[in-house]
Amino acid sequence: MANGISNLSSYLPIIDVARSYRREDLPHDVVAGVAVGMLTVPQAVAYALLAGLPAEAGLYACLAPMLIHAVLSSSRQLIVGPVAIAALMVASTVGEHAPAYSDAYLGITTVLSLQVGVILVLLRLLQVGGIVNLLSHPVISGFVNGAAILIIVSQLAPLTGIATTSALDDGALARVTDLARSIVEINPTALGLGVGGLLLMSAVRRWGAALLPRKPARNGGDGQLGHALTRAGPVLAAILGTVVVATFGLDVGVVGAVPAGMPELTLPVLDARLWWDLLPNALLIALVAFVESYSIGKTLASRQRRRIDSHQELLALGAANVGAAFSGAYPVAGSFTRSSINYASGARTPVSAFVCAGIIVLTLLWLTPLFENLPHAVLAAIVMVAVFELADFRSLARDWRFYRPDVLTHFATFAGVLLVGVEAGLVIGVAISIVLFMRGSARPHIAVVGRLGETPHFRNVKRYPVRTWDHLVAARVDESLYFANADTSESRLAELVDNPEQAPSDEEGDSEAAAVEHLLIIMSAVNFIDTTGLEMLKRLTHRLARRNVALHFSEIKGPVRDQLEHAAVDDWLTGRVFQTTDDAFNALTEAKGKWVWRDLPQNTHDP
Amino acid sequence: MANGISNLSSYLPIIDVARSYRREDLPHDVVAGVAVGMLTVPQAVAYALLAGLPAEAGLYACLAPMLIHAVLSSSRQLIVGPVAIAALMVASTVGEHAPAYSDAYLGITTVLSLQVGVILVLLRLLQVGGIVNLLSHPVISGFVNGAAILIIVSQLAPLTGIATTSALDDGALARVTDLARSIVEINPTALGLGVGGLLLMSAVRRWGAALLPRKPARNGGDGQLGHALTRAGPVLAAILGTVVVATFGLDVGVVGAVPAGMPELTLPVLDARLWWDLLPNALLIALVAFVESYSIGKTLASRQRRRIDSHQELLALGAANVGAAFSGAYPVAGSFTRSSINYASGARTPVSAFVCAGIIVLTLLWLTPLFENLPHAVLAAIVMVAVFELADFRSLARDWRFYRPDVLTHFATFAGVLLVGVEAGLVIGVAISIVLFMRGSARPHIAVVGRLGETPHFRNVKRYPVRTWDHLVAARVDESLYFANADTSESRLAELVDNPEQAPSDEEGDSEAAAVEHLLIIMSAVNFIDTTGLEMLKRLTHRLARRNVALHFSEIKGPVRDQLEHAAVDDWLTGRVFQTTDDAFNALTEAKGKWVWRDLPQNTHDP
Repeated sequence: MANGISNLSSYLPIIDVARSYRREDLPHDVVAGVAVGMLTVPQAVAYALLAGLPAEAGLYACLAPMLIHAVLSSSRQLIVGPVAIAALMVASTVGEHAPAYSDAYLGITTVLSLQVGVILVLLRLLQVGGIVNLLSHPVISGFVNGAAILIIVSQLAPLTGIATTSALDDGALARVTDLARSIVEINPTALGLGVGGLLLMSAVRRWGAALLPRKPARNGGDGQLGHALTRAGPVLAAILGTVVVATFGLDVGVVGAVPAGMPELTLPVLDARLWWDLLPNALLIALVAFVESYSIGKTLASRQRRRIDSHQELLALGAANVGAAFSGAYPVAGSFTRSSINYASGARTPVSAFVCAGIIVLTLLWLTPLFENLPHAVLAAIVMVAVFELADFRSLARDWRFYRPDVLTHFATFAGVLLVGVEAGLVIGVAISIVLFMRGSARPHIAVVGRLGETPHFRNVKRYPVRTWDHLVAARVDESLYFANADTSESRLAELVDNPEQAPSDEEGDSEAAAVEHLLIIMSAVNFIDTTGLEMLKRLTHRLARRNVALHFSEIKGPVRDQLEHAAVDDWLTGRVFQTTDDAFNALTEAKGKWVWRDLPQNTHDP
Repeated sequence: MANGISNLSSYLPIIDVARSYRREDLPHDVVAGVAVGMLTVPQAVAYALLAGLPAEAGLYACLAPMLIHAVLSSSRQLIVGPVAIAALMVASTVGEHAPAYSDAYLGITTVLSLQVGVILVLLRLLQVGGIVNLLSHPVISGFVNGAAILIIVSQLAPLTGIATTSALDDGALARVTDLARSIVEINPTALGLGVGGLLLMSAVRRWGAALLPRKPARNGGDGQLGHALTRAGPVLAAILGTVVVATFGLDVGVVGAVPAGMPELTLPVLDARLWWDLLPNALLIALVAFVESYSIGKTLASRQRRRIDSHQELLALGAANVGAAFSGAYPVAGSFTRSSINYASGARTPVSAFVCAGIIVLTLLWLTPLFENLPHAVLAAIVMVAVFELADFRSLARDWRFYRPDVLTHFATFAGVLLVGVEAGLVIGVAISIVLFMRGSARPHIAVVGRLGETPHFRNVKRYPVRTWDHLVAARVDESLYFANADTSESRLAELVDNPEQAPSDEEGDSEAAAVEHLLIIMSAVNFIDTTGLEMLKRLTHRLARRNVALHFSEIKGPVRDQLEHAAVDDWLTGRVFQTTDDAFNALTEAKGKWVWRDLPQNTHDP
């Protein structure tokens, strides 16, 4: 019985939370929940408009989806709901099928949410969640940076009160050109409100914490209540903007009437063609939503010596999106801003998400009239500030020094998102990262090594003062031997035997170097060999044998040793397999004649 | 001046051949050229028909293309010309655009040849020939096996004299069904000729060498003249078949009138849409043609302690295909059968190719009337015997034991070719091989190691009786740390610290194991770290620090060491970087307290 519950609680982490809940956790969760709720309302409305959906769809996304996730997630502070990136992807996907803010658009979004949810659950059930690893660090950051610019550009129109005709898919440049052409149409009131909102939020972000009396850090959530206060800007901007518009009766675009009350059950459109068309985009949204959510959850968990379970997170986010589909919302993901505030405000358990949901319910029941005068310009400012924080170009210089291909991947994804399209950019990024990875491993680092003094250690002749012997070339291949690099490795190893001067001898003046008799391949970095690699080794053995050079191996790792035994290495290798490089050097550099050349193996390449 | 010539001769290897040509080479080259020429005539006609082209197109492919290649190639015995696989790919590509044996079909083939040639030359000029490595051993063998079955099935109709209606792209199954339905239409005369041809060729193949008096091996080409004789079957079959048909006036399908004379200049059709449509197929044909040719050339060269240059071969095969485009031929590649015979008959230089071309010219000028009575059934038998030799399923069992993913790739390609299509199968194979490779490296082998006796060597605790310490877990990660495996590696390394019993201690009865204090990652097999891997290492350091476990590295290779220095490893690592694992064990297993825990680094993950 206890086992049954413990089993159940591994699928429903909320059970553990409930069982271990302490009365003193409640005030922390309530404070955090209220803080998150306050920020959530304006963000939810703003992101809904960005996604091309009515304001209430954003609020609905903070009910069923957020609560389903809170019940299922192994993270204690991660808050899911409407986010900017997912909103952009929804707009780019659904915008191809229906005009924004229409009923058809909402119906298609419902299908998309359901697909995203089902895909995530399937990834979990089929145990192929590992596919998300294809969205590497540079792909995600290039994607987020590109998306941030697209979003900021898309918000220039509402910020300035200009009605644009260009669509999201026309790209950032077309939008900017379009705006520049319509510059005379700028609504100064809207621009004033928007810029005012931007300034207000920047000010709060910078000096908000200073308003609070300095207190010693409280336990839980690192006691960064000040941090939460720096995030109050959007709420203040929304309230002030609404008050100003209502008081002076300003003529600017406003959200307008929002239906009061709770979401109703929505059912996805059944249209096979539509489902099929949306599927690739749903997959990409699912992957991006998961990667973003999981990385936020992982960061928060690691601060508390907790672990989050990627399998459970797939399930939780999948279920949340299925919930979004049936409650008139749209695809949800983990929110970086709101999760950070939740954590910083001291949230200890997912109970804070329920408090936050309470704020949303209050808003939906009694506060919807306030949206009548909430200006679009201020919402645009809120979106701009939020995505501005997502973008990060500073790490690129550091990454360039660390690993250049990642910077290329970043720019390919970034340029793809801006020039080709949101989803296409992501696919381009993944493809480039695979190509660059294969290209890297296709040109393996091969180091000629020598003995370090009298030690049993061997190092690259180019980096260390080591001892080498004329008749023995020892090469460490720093890559598994497989199809992408077999041919290159063969050429380069053969070349080492032809031009042994690459391995400088320590005996000076020995210009007429003795002929190479042994090539030793040090396999410490060879993690597997595929059949193309095996053919290469056999061919190389043969090729060297014709020049009276014997091929030896050392430091073969367990799995590769097993492989080579299956391949009957003893039948075709002209040299020996040594346990260590030390053994190999000892055997091969002692008086000649001691080492016995094995018979040339049967020519296995005859037709 | 001498330099100029030597420079030129690196682009025109024939210059070296001419300069070093010895009179005694000539008889060898003439014998080999005649032997190859005899075989070439029936094969060229048979493959032309397989490709959907008139008989003369096959013969033309043995003039300009073969000679251009002979002048440019760095291989001395490789013979290019019409081959079965390329013929199949041409039929599958061009068959979609025009009916076989039509003028339009020939025109489209000309475009295809030109594209194949230009692609190969571009691969050379842009120095991206490495892309051919994507066609790994299992992809090529799966492709060849699938193509062999498709070709054999396609020849059943001419062999039995049945006129089929199904096209190549309908797949092997549709063809067999179609034939079975038309079984009453079998032409017994054709079937008799075809089966007779098959039996004759099998007999010659098996007993041909026995007809020759045993002689000691001659120098050059391993003196396997007997080998050449075993290949005489097709010529005999073609001559006998023609004689029988002519003598008895049999009513079977024959090649019919072939225009006498040399090829005329042909110009490719200019049609942008057509060019664009053919391009992907041209790329695949180019890659397959090159991989096949290069591997034959490599095998032959290695038998003579020669090397062939992949760059030069790209150029040679590319120019040969451009030559094919302008001389009414079709895409050419290295022929396994004819190159082997050339080598076995003692060819020493490409001069043998010129002798072979002489035979083709003689045939075109005076012998074309003989084709009037050459029966289709015998040509079908010739094709079947040739491709039967290409297929190889025997190595699969061996490959399964050696490296299973390659067998999966083989079958995916094989099934793709048979069920989806010739080109699609190839693409599927390449995609699967990349996916399986990434999947393999996404689950790295991580070995916990211990000290082997008192030696400075460290081995897997699961494979060797080694000494370990409770407070130190030493893990060797057998893969580069990059985006595909960063997440998995992090979980598994963290788990080793949580469940150190995976690393059995040699101190018995010590059930209450001391807490782990150090995790040592042995980096001997880590060939690079990308930014995703770096983030992982930083996160892991942090996560372990919260549990008071210090992270150390040892055996970092040069390039990775440079990377970590760029990443300021000293600023964030809680432990130390050791030169060798021996140093690390010495420092970390001596009396506690000696090793000083560094300060916990700044929390770099705060928002």
